[in-house]
Amino acid sequence: MCELLAMSANTPTDLCFSFTGLTRRGGDTGPHGDGWGIAFYEGKGVRAFHEPSASASSRIAEVVQSHPIKSEVAICHIRQANVGAVTLANTHPFMRELWGRYWTFAHNGQLQGFSAPPGYYEPVGDTDSEALFCDMLNRLRQHCDRDSSRDTLIGLLVRQAEGYARQGVFNLLLSNGDWLFTFCTTKMASITRRAPFGPARLKDADLTVDFAAETTPNDVVSVVVTEPLTSDERWDIYQPGEWRLWTAGEVVQRGRVSL
Amino acid sequence: MCELLAMSANTPTDLCFSFTGLTRRGGDTGPHGDGWGIAFYEGKGVRAFHEPSASASSRIAEVVQSHPIKSEVAICHIRQANVGAVTLANTHPFMRELWGRYWTFAHNGQLQGFSAPPGYYEPVGDTDSEALFCDMLNRLRQHCDRDSSRDTLIGLLVRQAEGYARQGVFNLLLSNGDWLFTFCTTKMASITRRAPFGPARLKDADLTVDFAAETTPNDVVSVVVTEPLTSDERWDIYQPGEWRLWTAGEVVQRGRVSL
Repeated sequence: MCELLAMSANTPTDLCFSFTGLTRRGGDTGPHGDGWGIAFYEGKGVRAFHEPSASASSRIAEVVQSHPIKSEVAICHIRQANVGAVTLANTHPFMRELWGRYWTFAHNGQLQGFSAPPGYYEPVGDTDSEALFCDMLNRLRQHCDRDSSRDTLIGLLVRQAEGYARQGVFNLLLSNGDWLFTFCTTKMASITRRAPFGPARLKDADLTVDFAAETTPNDVVSVVVTEPLTSDERWDIYQPGEWRLWTAGEVVQRGRVSL
Repeated sequence: MCELLAMSANTPTDLCFSFTGLTRRGGDTGPHGDGWGIAFYEGKGVRAFHEPSASASSRIAEVVQSHPIKSEVAICHIRQANVGAVTLANTHPFMRELWGRYWTFAHNGQLQGFSAPPGYYEPVGDTDSEALFCDMLNRLRQHCDRDSSRDTLIGLLVRQAEGYARQGVFNLLLSNGDWLFTFCTTKMASITRRAPFGPARLKDADLTVDFAAETTPNDVVSVVVTEPLTSDERWDIYQPGEWRLWTAGEVVQRGRVSL
Protein backbone atom coordinates (compact mmCIF):
# COMPACT_ATOMS: atom_id res chain seq x y z
CA MET A 1 0.00 0.00 0.00
CA CYS A 2 0.99 3.58 -0.56
CA GLU A 3 -0.20 6.80 1.04
CA LEU A 4 -2.04 9.58 -0.67
CA LEU A 5 -2.41 13.28 0.13
CA ALA A 6 -4.27 16.02 -1.70
CA MET A 7 -5.32 19.59 -1.09
CA SER A 8 -8.13 21.74 -2.46
CA ALA A 9 -8.25 25.40 -1.39
CA ASN A 10 -10.05 28.60 -2.34
CA THR A 11 -6.84 30.61 -2.21
CA PRO A 12 -3.22 29.68 -2.98
CA THR A 13 -2.08 27.80 0.11
CA ASP A 14 1.06 25.90 0.97
CA LEU A 15 1.03 22.26 1.95
CA CYS A 16 4.17 22.33 4.12
CA PHE A 17 2.49 21.11 7.33
CA SER A 18 0.63 18.14 5.84
CA PHE A 19 3.53 17.24 3.56
CA THR A 20 5.87 17.18 6.57
CA GLY A 21 3.58 14.69 8.30
CA LEU A 22 3.15 12.49 5.26
CA THR A 23 6.82 12.37 4.31
CA ARG A 24 7.70 10.98 7.76
CA ARG A 25 5.73 7.91 6.76
CA GLY A 26 8.13 7.51 3.85
CA GLY A 27 10.82 5.54 5.63
CA ASP A 28 10.50 6.91 9.18
CA THR A 29 7.11 6.45 10.95
CA GLY A 30 5.87 4.37 8.00
CA PRO A 31 7.34 1.87 5.55
CA HIS A 32 6.70 3.80 2.33
CA GLY A 33 10.34 4.25 1.38
CA ASP A 34 10.14 3.48 -2.35
CA GLY A 35 9.66 6.98 -3.63
CA TRP A 36 7.54 10.05 -3.33
CA GLY A 37 6.11 12.68 -5.61
CA ILE A 38 4.02 15.81 -5.46
CA ALA A 39 2.33 17.99 -8.08
CA PHE A 40 1.24 21.57 -7.35
CA TYR A 41 -1.03 23.44 -9.73
CA GLU A 42 -0.26 27.12 -10.20
CA GLY A 43 -2.83 28.42 -12.66
CA LYS A 44 -2.78 25.96 -15.53
CA GLY A 45 0.85 25.07 -14.87
CA VAL A 46 2.08 22.23 -12.69
CA ARG A 47 5.21 22.14 -10.59
CA ALA A 48 6.14 18.56 -9.82
CA PHE A 49 8.79 16.84 -7.75
CA HIS A 50 9.52 13.11 -7.93
CA GLU A 51 12.12 10.92 -6.29
CA PRO A 52 12.45 7.13 -6.37
CA SER A 53 13.77 7.02 -2.79
CA ALA A 54 12.59 7.56 0.79
CA SER A 55 11.01 10.95 1.46
CA ALA A 56 12.02 10.93 5.14
CA SER A 57 15.69 11.36 4.20
CA SER A 58 15.33 13.39 1.01
CA ARG A 59 17.04 16.76 0.60
CA ILE A 60 14.51 17.76 -2.05
CA ALA A 61 11.56 16.73 0.15
CA GLU A 62 13.10 18.88 2.88
CA VAL A 63 13.06 21.89 0.53
CA VAL A 64 9.42 21.21 -0.42
CA GLN A 65 8.56 21.01 3.31
CA SER A 66 10.19 24.31 4.13
CA HIS A 67 9.72 26.32 0.92
CA PRO A 68 6.06 27.39 0.81
CA ILE A 69 4.79 26.56 -2.68
CA LYS A 70 1.30 28.04 -2.89
CA SER A 71 -1.34 26.19 -4.81
CA GLU A 72 -5.10 25.70 -4.97
CA VAL A 73 -4.83 22.03 -5.89
CA ALA A 74 -2.02 19.63 -5.05
CA ILE A 75 -1.63 15.86 -5.20
CA CYS A 76 1.04 13.84 -3.38
CA HIS A 77 1.95 10.17 -3.07
CA ILE A 78 4.48 8.17 -1.10
CA ARG A 79 5.17 4.73 -2.41
CA GLN A 80 5.61 1.26 -1.03
CA ALA A 81 6.13 -0.69 -4.23
CA ASN A 82 4.12 -3.80 -4.99
CA VAL A 83 3.81 -3.78 -8.79
CA GLY A 84 6.69 -2.27 -10.76
CA ALA A 85 10.32 -1.66 -9.85
CA VAL A 86 11.50 1.25 -7.70
CA THR A 87 12.29 3.66 -10.52
CA LEU A 88 11.58 7.27 -11.33
CA ALA A 89 9.24 6.22 -14.17
CA ASN A 90 7.08 4.34 -11.62
CA THR A 91 6.85 7.24 -9.16
CA HIS A 92 3.43 8.91 -8.77
CA PRO A 93 1.80 11.35 -9.40
CA PHE A 94 1.59 10.71 -13.14
CA MET A 95 0.75 13.53 -15.51
CA ARG A 96 -0.63 13.82 -19.04
CA GLU A 97 -2.08 16.66 -21.10
CA LEU A 98 -5.70 16.36 -22.25
CA TRP A 99 -7.64 19.14 -24.00
CA GLY A 100 -4.92 21.68 -23.24
CA ARG A 101 -4.86 20.98 -19.49
CA TYR A 102 -2.50 18.93 -17.35
CA TRP A 103 -4.20 16.04 -15.60
CA THR A 104 -2.48 14.52 -12.57
CA PHE A 105 -3.18 11.18 -10.93
CA ALA A 106 -2.12 9.25 -7.84
CA HIS A 107 -3.49 5.89 -6.74
CA ASN A 108 -3.12 3.33 -4.06
CA GLY A 109 -4.20 -0.24 -4.36
CA GLN A 110 -3.84 -3.02 -6.84
CA LEU A 111 -6.12 -4.53 -9.45
CA GLN A 112 -6.05 -8.25 -10.15
CA GLY A 113 -4.85 -8.86 -13.70
CA PHE A 114 -5.81 -5.42 -14.98
CA SER A 115 -5.02 -4.90 -18.62
CA ALA A 116 -6.05 -1.88 -20.62
CA PRO A 117 -6.93 -1.85 -24.31
CA PRO A 118 -4.36 0.07 -26.37
CA GLY A 119 -5.07 3.77 -26.67
CA TYR A 120 -3.62 7.15 -27.30
CA TYR A 121 -2.11 7.50 -23.82
CA GLU A 122 0.42 4.84 -22.91
CA PRO A 123 2.22 4.10 -19.68
CA VAL A 124 5.96 4.88 -19.59
CA GLY A 125 6.67 2.80 -16.49
CA ASP A 126 5.29 -0.59 -15.53
CA THR A 127 2.86 0.05 -12.67
CA ASP A 128 -0.78 -0.94 -12.95
CA SER A 129 -1.53 2.56 -11.56
CA GLU A 130 -0.12 4.35 -14.59
CA ALA A 131 -1.92 1.87 -16.90
CA LEU A 132 -5.18 2.72 -15.08
CA PHE A 133 -4.56 6.44 -15.48
CA CYS A 134 -3.93 6.07 -19.21
CA ASP A 135 -7.08 3.94 -19.54
CA MET A 136 -9.15 6.60 -17.74
CA LEU A 137 -7.88 9.35 -20.03
CA ASN A 138 -8.31 7.22 -23.16
CA ARG A 139 -11.94 6.62 -22.21
CA LEU A 140 -12.50 10.30 -21.42
CA ARG A 141 -11.11 11.22 -24.83
CA GLN A 142 -13.30 8.58 -26.47
CA HIS A 143 -16.59 9.45 -24.76
CA CYS A 144 -16.30 13.15 -23.92
CA ASP A 145 -14.79 16.25 -25.45
CA ARG A 146 -13.45 19.59 -24.32
CA ASP A 147 -16.97 21.04 -24.18
CA SER A 148 -18.45 18.25 -22.06
CA SER A 149 -20.03 19.52 -18.85
CA ARG A 150 -18.40 18.77 -15.54
CA ASP A 151 -21.38 16.55 -14.69
CA THR A 152 -20.80 14.46 -17.80
CA LEU A 153 -17.08 14.10 -17.06
CA ILE A 154 -17.62 13.21 -13.43
CA GLY A 155 -20.41 10.78 -14.32
CA LEU A 156 -18.00 8.94 -16.59
CA LEU A 157 -15.21 9.01 -13.99
CA VAL A 158 -17.53 7.55 -11.35
CA ARG A 159 -18.57 4.69 -13.67
CA GLN A 160 -14.92 4.01 -14.48
CA ALA A 161 -13.91 4.09 -10.82
CA GLU A 162 -16.77 1.73 -9.95
CA GLY A 163 -15.57 -0.73 -12.58
CA TYR A 164 -11.97 -0.63 -11.35
CA ALA A 165 -13.02 -0.85 -7.70
CA ARG A 166 -14.78 -4.15 -8.42
CA GLN A 167 -11.46 -5.58 -9.58
CA GLY A 168 -9.43 -4.64 -6.50
CA VAL A 169 -8.32 -1.78 -4.32
CA PHE A 170 -8.69 1.59 -6.00
CA ASN A 171 -8.15 4.68 -3.89
CA LEU A 172 -7.81 7.57 -6.30
CA LEU A 173 -6.80 11.23 -6.52
CA LEU A 174 -7.31 12.87 -9.92
CA SER A 175 -7.23 16.53 -10.90
CA ASN A 176 -7.25 18.73 -13.99
CA GLY A 177 -6.41 21.80 -11.93
CA ASP A 178 -10.03 23.00 -11.72
CA TRP A 179 -11.31 20.23 -9.49
CA LEU A 180 -10.06 17.31 -7.43
CA PHE A 181 -11.85 13.98 -7.82
CA THR A 182 -11.37 11.52 -4.94
CA PHE A 183 -12.58 7.95 -4.77
CA CYS A 184 -12.20 5.50 -1.90
CA THR A 185 -12.44 1.74 -1.79
CA THR A 186 -10.61 1.12 1.49
CA LYS A 187 -9.05 4.11 3.27
CA MET A 188 -9.47 7.83 2.85
CA ALA A 189 -10.21 10.76 5.17
CA SER A 190 -10.64 14.49 4.74
CA ILE A 191 -10.70 17.63 6.80
CA THR A 192 -11.93 21.11 5.89
CA ARG A 193 -10.34 23.97 7.77
CA ARG A 194 -12.10 27.35 7.82
CA ALA A 195 -12.53 30.26 10.25
CA PRO A 196 -12.26 30.21 13.19
CA PHE A 197 -8.92 28.49 12.58
CA GLY A 198 -7.09 26.84 15.43
CA PRO A 199 -3.92 24.89 16.11
CA ALA A 200 -3.22 21.35 14.94
CA ARG A 201 -0.62 18.78 15.91
CA LEU A 202 0.90 16.24 13.53
CA LYS A 203 0.74 12.56 14.48
CA ASP A 204 3.96 11.69 12.65
CA ALA A 205 6.25 14.53 13.69
CA ASP A 206 6.64 16.77 16.68
CA LEU A 207 5.09 19.74 14.93
CA THR A 208 2.16 22.00 15.76
CA VAL A 209 0.86 24.74 13.53
CA ASP A 210 -1.47 27.59 14.40
CA PHE A 211 -3.54 27.97 11.26
CA ALA A 212 -5.07 31.21 12.62
CA ALA A 213 -1.70 32.89 12.13
CA GLU A 214 -1.33 31.69 8.55
CA THR A 215 -4.78 32.30 7.10
CA THR A 216 -7.38 34.97 6.46
CA PRO A 217 -10.99 34.60 7.68
CA ASN A 218 -12.22 33.74 4.16
CA ASP A 219 -9.82 30.86 3.52
CA VAL A 220 -11.23 27.38 3.03
CA VAL A 221 -8.59 24.65 2.81
CA SER A 222 -9.34 20.94 2.62
CA VAL A 223 -6.93 18.06 2.87
CA VAL A 224 -7.66 14.50 1.73
CA VAL A 225 -5.38 11.74 2.92
CA THR A 226 -5.13 7.98 3.35
CA GLU A 227 -5.02 8.23 7.15
CA PRO A 228 -5.61 11.31 9.32
CA LEU A 229 -2.45 13.38 9.76
CA THR A 230 -3.29 15.18 12.99
CA SER A 231 -4.21 13.88 16.42
CA ASP A 232 -6.34 16.77 17.70
CA GLU A 233 -8.79 17.42 14.88
CA ARG A 234 -11.85 15.58 13.66
CA TRP A 235 -11.41 13.95 10.27
CA ASP A 236 -14.29 12.88 8.06
CA ILE A 237 -13.75 9.24 7.09
CA TYR A 238 -14.81 8.09 3.59
CA GLN A 239 -16.97 4.99 3.29
CA PRO A 240 -15.98 2.21 0.88
CA GLY A 241 -17.29 3.18 -2.55
CA GLU A 242 -17.61 6.85 -1.62
CA TRP A 243 -16.44 9.62 -3.94
CA ARG A 244 -16.20 13.36 -3.42
CA LEU A 245 -15.51 16.11 -5.91
CA TRP A 246 -13.70 19.12 -4.46
CA THR A 247 -13.46 22.65 -5.78
CA ALA A 248 -11.97 25.62 -3.94
CA GLY A 249 -11.84 23.65 -0.70
CA GLU A 250 -15.49 22.53 -0.71
CA VAL A 251 -17.20 19.29 -1.67
CA VAL A 252 -19.32 20.23 -4.69
CA GLN A 253 -20.56 16.76 -5.58
CA ARG A 254 -20.47 13.45 -3.77
CA GLY A 255 -21.89 9.98 -4.01
CA ARG A 256 -21.34 6.34 -3.22
CA VAL A 257 -21.31 3.29 -5.43
CA SER A 258 -21.91 -0.23 -4.21
CA LEU A 259 -18.84 -2.44 -4.37
CA MET B 1 15.90 35.50 -26.28
CA CYS B 2 16.30 32.68 -23.84
CA GLU B 3 19.24 30.44 -23.08
CA LEU B 4 19.40 26.72 -23.63
CA LEU B 5 21.53 23.99 -22.06
CA ALA B 6 21.58 20.25 -22.67
CA MET B 7 23.75 17.30 -21.78
CA SER B 8 24.33 13.93 -23.41
CA ALA B 9 26.57 11.46 -21.59
CA ASN B 10 27.52 7.78 -21.78
CA THR B 11 27.19 7.36 -18.01
CA PRO B 12 24.91 9.02 -15.46
CA THR B 13 26.51 12.40 -14.87
CA ASP B 14 25.46 15.45 -12.90
CA LEU B 15 25.03 18.84 -14.51
CA CYS B 16 25.82 20.94 -11.41
CA PHE B 17 28.77 22.83 -12.91
CA SER B 18 27.08 23.87 -16.18
CA PHE B 19 23.77 24.53 -14.47
CA THR B 20 25.51 26.83 -11.99
CA GLY B 21 26.95 28.87 -14.86
CA LEU B 22 23.69 29.03 -16.77
CA THR B 23 21.53 30.00 -13.84
CA ARG B 24 23.70 33.06 -13.15
CA ARG B 25 22.47 34.36 -16.49
CA GLY B 26 18.94 34.17 -15.08
CA GLY B 27 18.83 37.58 -13.40
CA ASP B 28 22.50 38.01 -12.44
CA THR B 29 25.08 38.01 -15.28
CA GLY B 30 22.25 37.86 -17.84
CA PRO B 31 18.73 39.25 -18.16
CA HIS B 32 16.84 35.91 -18.33
CA GLY B 33 14.87 36.39 -15.13
CA ASP B 34 11.45 35.16 -16.26
CA GLY B 35 11.74 31.56 -15.23
CA TRP B 36 13.85 28.47 -15.55
CA GLY B 37 13.32 24.77 -15.90
CA ILE B 38 15.29 21.57 -16.21
CA ALA B 39 14.40 17.98 -17.06
CA PHE B 40 16.68 15.06 -16.20
CA TYR B 41 16.10 11.60 -17.65
CA GLU B 42 16.71 8.69 -15.31
CA GLY B 43 15.98 5.56 -17.32
CA LYS B 44 12.59 6.21 -18.92
CA GLY B 45 11.56 8.53 -16.09
CA VAL B 46 12.00 12.28 -16.02
CA ARG B 47 12.67 14.45 -13.01
CA ALA B 48 11.74 18.04 -13.80
CA PHE B 49 11.98 21.35 -11.97
CA HIS B 50 10.26 24.53 -13.14
CA GLU B 51 9.97 28.00 -11.66
CA PRO B 52 8.45 31.12 -13.19
CA SER B 53 11.01 33.39 -11.52
CA ALA B 54 14.72 34.23 -11.70
CA SER B 55 17.06 31.27 -11.34
CA ALA B 56 19.88 33.38 -9.88
CA SER B 57 17.91 33.88 -6.66
CA SER B 58 15.99 30.59 -6.51
CA ARG B 59 16.22 28.29 -3.53
CA ILE B 60 15.18 25.33 -5.66
CA ALA B 61 17.77 26.16 -8.35
CA GLU B 62 20.34 26.26 -5.55
CA VAL B 63 19.39 22.72 -4.53
CA VAL B 64 19.63 21.53 -8.15
CA GLN B 65 23.09 23.15 -8.38
CA SER B 66 24.37 21.47 -5.27
CA HIS B 67 22.48 18.15 -5.25
CA PRO B 68 24.07 15.93 -7.91
CA ILE B 69 21.22 14.50 -9.98
CA LYS B 70 22.80 11.97 -12.32
CA SER B 71 21.43 11.62 -15.79
CA GLU B 72 22.46 10.60 -19.31
CA VAL B 73 20.29 13.22 -20.98
CA ALA B 74 19.15 16.55 -19.55
CA ILE B 75 17.55 19.66 -21.02
CA CYS B 76 17.47 23.09 -19.38
CA HIS B 77 16.11 26.52 -20.29
CA ILE B 78 16.20 29.96 -18.72
CA ARG B 79 13.63 32.37 -19.98
CA GLN B 80 13.43 35.98 -21.01
CA ALA B 81 9.80 36.22 -22.01
CA ASN B 82 8.76 37.65 -25.36
CA VAL B 83 5.59 35.71 -26.24
CA GLY B 84 3.40 34.57 -23.34
CA ALA B 85 3.09 35.79 -19.78
CA VAL B 86 5.54 34.89 -17.02
CA THR B 87 3.68 31.88 -15.65
CA LEU B 88 4.51 28.33 -14.69
CA ALA B 89 2.52 27.01 -17.68
CA ASN B 90 4.83 28.97 -20.01
CA THR B 91 8.05 27.72 -18.44
CA HIS B 92 10.22 25.36 -20.54
CA PRO B 93 11.11 22.51 -20.89
CA PHE B 94 7.73 21.19 -21.99
CA MET B 95 6.97 17.49 -21.78
CA ARG B 96 4.53 15.09 -23.41
CA GLU B 97 4.27 11.31 -23.63
CA LEU B 98 4.45 9.73 -27.10
CA TRP B 99 4.61 5.96 -27.75
CA GLY B 100 5.20 5.25 -24.06
CA ARG B 101 8.17 7.62 -23.73
CA TYR B 102 8.44 11.11 -22.31
CA TRP B 103 9.55 13.68 -24.88
CA THR B 104 11.02 16.95 -23.61
CA PHE B 105 11.51 20.16 -25.52
CA ALA B 106 13.11 23.56 -25.03
CA HIS B 107 13.38 26.30 -27.62
CA ASN B 108 14.66 29.77 -28.07
CA GLY B 109 13.53 32.14 -30.76
CA GLN B 110 10.27 33.31 -32.16
CA LEU B 111 8.30 32.49 -35.30
CA GLN B 112 6.35 35.17 -37.12
CA GLY B 113 2.64 34.40 -36.98
CA PHE B 114 3.07 30.68 -36.36
CA SER B 115 -0.17 28.80 -36.02
CA ALA B 116 -0.46 25.06 -35.79
CA PRO B 117 -3.32 22.96 -37.14
CA PRO B 118 -5.35 21.34 -34.35
CA GLY B 119 -4.07 17.96 -33.21
CA TYR B 120 -3.97 15.52 -30.34
CA TYR B 121 -1.32 17.42 -28.43
CA GLU B 122 -2.37 20.88 -27.38
CA PRO B 123 -0.48 23.64 -25.65
CA VAL B 124 -1.46 24.37 -22.04
CA GLY B 125 0.22 27.78 -21.89
CA ASP B 126 0.35 30.47 -24.54
CA THR B 127 3.91 30.45 -25.87
CA ASP B 128 4.63 29.82 -29.53
CA SER B 129 7.34 27.40 -28.30
CA GLU B 130 4.83 25.02 -26.73
CA ALA B 131 2.60 25.27 -29.83
CA LEU B 132 5.64 24.30 -31.95
CA PHE B 133 6.39 21.33 -29.72
CA CYS B 134 2.79 20.09 -29.96
CA ASP B 135 2.89 20.53 -33.74
CA MET B 136 6.13 18.51 -33.98
CA LEU B 137 4.65 15.64 -31.95
CA ASN B 138 1.35 15.72 -33.84
CA ARG B 139 3.25 15.38 -37.11
CA LEU B 140 5.45 12.59 -35.72
CA ARG B 141 2.33 10.73 -34.63
CA GLN B 142 0.78 11.29 -38.05
CA HIS B 143 3.72 10.25 -40.22
CA CYS B 144 5.66 7.77 -38.05
CA ASP B 145 4.91 5.07 -35.53
CA ARG B 146 6.58 3.40 -32.59
CA ASP B 147 8.46 1.05 -34.91
CA SER B 148 9.82 3.77 -37.20
CA SER B 149 13.63 3.71 -37.44
CA ARG B 150 15.64 6.47 -35.83
CA ASP B 151 16.67 7.61 -39.32
CA THR B 152 13.03 8.01 -40.33
CA LEU B 153 12.20 9.98 -37.17
CA ILE B 154 15.23 12.23 -37.46
CA GLY B 155 14.60 12.79 -41.17
CA LEU B 156 11.12 14.04 -40.34
CA LEU B 157 12.40 16.20 -37.46
CA VAL B 158 15.00 17.81 -39.73
CA ARG B 159 12.35 18.63 -42.36
CA GLN B 160 10.10 20.10 -39.65
CA ALA B 161 12.94 22.14 -38.16
CA GLU B 162 13.89 23.42 -41.61
CA GLY B 163 10.32 24.60 -42.16
CA TYR B 164 10.13 26.37 -38.80
CA ALA B 165 13.57 27.91 -39.23
CA ARG B 166 12.42 29.59 -42.43
CA GLN B 167 9.72 31.37 -40.43
CA GLY B 168 11.98 32.82 -37.74
CA VAL B 169 14.49 31.93 -35.07
CA PHE B 170 14.35 28.29 -34.06
CA ASN B 171 17.09 26.99 -31.77
CA LEU B 172 15.91 23.63 -30.49
CA LEU B 173 16.63 20.94 -27.92
CA LEU B 174 14.46 17.82 -28.13
CA SER B 175 14.85 14.43 -26.48
CA ASN B 176 12.98 11.19 -25.97
CA GLY B 177 15.54 9.98 -23.44
CA ASP B 178 17.43 7.83 -25.96
CA TRP B 179 18.86 10.67 -28.03
CA LEU B 180 19.15 14.44 -27.99
CA PHE B 181 18.28 16.32 -31.18
CA THR B 182 19.72 19.83 -31.46
CA PHE B 183 19.05 22.36 -34.20
CA CYS B 184 20.55 25.85 -34.55
CA THR B 185 19.40 28.85 -36.53
CA THR B 186 21.35 31.54 -34.71
CA LYS B 187 23.40 30.54 -31.66
CA MET B 188 24.50 27.17 -30.30
CA ALA B 189 27.79 25.66 -29.18
CA SER B 190 28.89 22.29 -27.85
CA ILE B 191 31.80 20.72 -26.06
CA THR B 192 32.67 17.05 -25.61
CA ARG B 193 34.75 16.20 -22.58
CA ARG B 194 36.61 12.88 -22.47
CA ALA B 195 39.88 11.53 -21.08
CA PRO B 196 42.31 13.07 -20.36
CA PHE B 197 39.97 15.34 -18.40
CA GLY B 198 41.21 18.67 -17.13
CA PRO B 199 39.99 21.69 -15.21
CA ALA B 200 37.47 24.22 -16.50
CA ARG B 201 36.48 27.67 -15.30
CA LEU B 202 32.99 29.14 -15.59
CA LYS B 203 32.57 32.49 -17.32
CA ASP B 204 29.54 33.48 -15.25
CA ALA B 205 30.60 32.50 -11.75
CA ASP B 206 33.82 32.23 -9.86
CA LEU B 207 33.91 28.45 -10.07
CA THR B 208 36.48 26.01 -11.40
CA VAL B 209 35.99 22.27 -11.58
CA ASP B 210 38.57 19.57 -12.10
CA PHE B 211 36.72 17.03 -14.21
CA ALA B 212 39.58 14.53 -13.77
CA ALA B 213 38.55 14.14 -10.13
CA GLU B 214 34.90 13.53 -10.98
CA THR B 215 35.10 11.14 -13.91
CA THR B 216 36.42 7.76 -14.98
CA PRO B 217 38.63 7.36 -18.08
CA ASN B 218 35.74 5.95 -20.12
CA ASP B 219 33.31 8.82 -19.54
CA VAL B 220 32.17 10.90 -22.49
CA VAL B 221 30.07 13.91 -21.56
CA SER B 222 28.87 16.55 -24.00
CA VAL B 223 27.21 19.85 -23.24
CA VAL B 224 25.23 21.92 -25.76
CA VAL B 225 24.46 25.51 -24.89
CA THR B 226 23.42 28.84 -26.42
CA GLU B 227 26.75 30.48 -25.57
CA PRO B 228 29.94 28.82 -24.25
CA LEU B 229 29.91 28.47 -20.47
CA THR B 230 33.64 28.26 -19.81
CA SER B 231 36.48 30.61 -20.65
CA ASP B 232 39.36 28.14 -20.91
CA GLU B 233 38.02 25.40 -23.17
CA ARG B 234 37.45 25.22 -26.91
CA TRP B 235 33.76 25.07 -27.85
CA ASP B 236 32.50 23.87 -31.20
CA ILE B 237 30.19 26.54 -32.63
CA TYR B 238 27.13 25.43 -34.67
CA GLN B 239 26.56 27.02 -38.07
CA PRO B 240 23.12 28.47 -38.93
CA GLY B 241 20.97 25.59 -40.16
CA GLU B 242 23.19 22.97 -38.54
CA TRP B 243 21.74 20.05 -36.60
CA ARG B 244 23.42 17.35 -34.52
CA LEU B 245 22.00 14.22 -33.02
CA TRP B 246 23.67 13.13 -29.79
CA THR B 247 23.67 9.72 -28.13
CA ALA B 248 25.78 8.73 -25.12
CA GLY B 249 27.83 11.91 -25.41
CA GLU B 250 28.73 11.52 -29.09
CA VAL B 251 27.39 13.07 -32.28
CA VAL B 252 25.87 10.12 -34.15
CA GLN B 253 24.31 12.06 -37.04
CA ARG B 254 24.69 15.61 -38.24
CA GLY B 255 23.75 17.80 -41.15
CA ARG B 256 22.96 21.29 -42.27
CA VAL B 257 19.96 22.72 -44.07
CA SER B 258 19.99 25.92 -46.05
CA LEU B 259 17.98 28.71 -44.48
